[in-house]
Amino acid sequence: MRVLVNISYQGSQFLGFQIQQNGRTVQQQFEKILKRMHKRDIRIHPSSRTDRGVHALEQYFHFDTELNIPAQQWQYAMNRALPDDVYVNDVRFVDDDFHCRYDCVGKSYRYKIYQAAHKDPFLSGLKTFMSDELDLEAMNEAAQHFIGTHDFTGFCSQKTEVESKVRTLYESRIERTESGFDYIVTGSGFLYNMVRVLIAFLIEVGKGKRLPKEVPTLLEAKDRNQVPFTAPAEGLYLEKIYLTPSELIQDFGEDIKIHQKKSSQNH
Amino acid sequence: MRVLVNISYQGSQFLGFQIQQNGRTVQQQFEKILKRMHKRDIRIHPSSRTDRGVHALEQYFHFDTELNIPAQQWQYAMNRALPDDVYVNDVRFVDDDFHCRYDCVGKSYRYKIYQAAHKDPFLSGLKTFMSDELDLEAMNEAAQHFIGTHDFTGFCSQKTEVESKVRTLYESRIERTESGFDYIVTGSGFLYNMVRVLIAFLIEVGKGKRLPKEVPTLLEAKDRNQVPFTAPAEGLYLEKIYLTPSELIQDFGEDIKIHQKKSSQNH
Repeated sequence: MRVLVNISYQGSQFLGFQIQQNGRTVQQQFEKILKRMHKRDIRIHPSSRTDRGVHALEQYFHFDTELNIPAQQWQYAMNRALPDDVYVNDVRFVDDDFHCRYDCVGKSYRYKIYQAAHKDPFLSGLKTFMSDELDLEAMNEAAQHFIGTHDFTGFCSQKTEVESKVRTLYESRIERTESGFDYIVTGSGFLYNMVRVLIAFLIEVGKGKRLPKEVPTLLEAKDRNQVPFTAPAEGLYLEKIYLTPSELIQDFGEDIKIHQKKSSQNH
Repeated sequence: MRVLVNISYQGSQFLGFQIQQNGRTVQQQFEKILKRMHKRDIRIHPSSRTDRGVHALEQYFHFDTELNIPAQQWQYAMNRALPDDVYVNDVRFVDDDFHCRYDCVGKSYRYKIYQAAHKDPFLSGLKTFMSDELDLEAMNEAAQHFIGTHDFTGFCSQKTEVESKVRTLYESRIERTESGFDYIVTGSGFLYNMVRVLIAFLIEVGKGKRLPKEVPTLLEAKDRNQVPFTAPAEGLYLEKIYLTPSELIQDFGEDIKIHQKKSSQNH
């Protein structure tokens, strides 16, 4: 039986999603619980491997089990054993050929920034601080230029090891909030550090150091040296996972390009 | 020169205020910075020694220095060197006979509780979770009974080592919030774990397991075994420190009893 689990976590005390030799990770928390229940190792497969300090409002993983436990009881059992900074929102059963990573056709991220004269210690790890005034309209204009299908080689970590760096963004915009602003971006997939490089670039635009109209040239250049900054992890939230094309179509219309990636290297 | 420092901190990643052999404490963060600046050990003296996991919206400490640095530059230098979960709000110079602990005539605490069907991982370490519905009016009625001068032996940790367990509470009330409620309590001083025992008792009242009218009898009994619970540290915030009687009189009127404690053991 294949079990699909919808979770949220506060990333500040995790070294990321993926299990590591040493250190606290989200995967480790779940595999420890599942091992205890199954009396053997159980591997979980997430839709996304978030980095150290990155949060998830919605993340999915699946695993296979022979245990005959109703969905709601899976949720209850895991929540009872989990620490307070991770929570199971929902559990359901899926077909055996469903795969959290290969069936993921899109993801949304939200990057939260608060603007204030002084740092707020109670937002430490939860939002990124900026004291500068920024031109949010210019930032939003620049953000729009990323929408569509592009090679994002110039806007990801140079350590990214995937065959193709072409991704499609369906949404990329700045939203004013009570205490600052959020950057919201939805795409077919994201390269390593890509959202943190995009928002770092947009902040440069907000400061007047870069112009919105430079975006097409920079995408064309495919040169990370021209986009040198990476924003800190603490403001980054994985917000939504699209597991079917129909959900994406519902949010972004029938004309969008959908990337199916059964057995691709995409993440 | 005596320097008075007003700070805030998020307590979840600290083992408390006071320096310890091993582990991260607030005092350690400041003494490390001051040692670097002075090239010798500098001891800081707080108004309150908060426990592991307890937060401070306002806390004070003082130290003595021979360095000739303006107040604003002290603030700047410390904030630049501090981690993100502690912040210096203000620095000023005080008389040499001023003492943060002995001149403290009152403190306010706020205990934050959120009520929801599900735990929120983003409030982990910041607010205490309760799924129960509680009778807030009964809790507020019980809270009122603690106002005044009482022996709080029955409402503190049995490990409390002070001569007198008599304290005066000026304010003790429940305040409804958007996501739950806060307990606000102001007093001449607090015994070890006292606020966490008070709110744990009030929650029992909210559940209907205790009655508001039991408070006078329980105060009289001076028996902690009759009040067995202690609420978790994560919801507790030191909110205000009263360093002069006039501030207390301003908030609570001229008729209040003020405890001066030059060289007392109170904390």
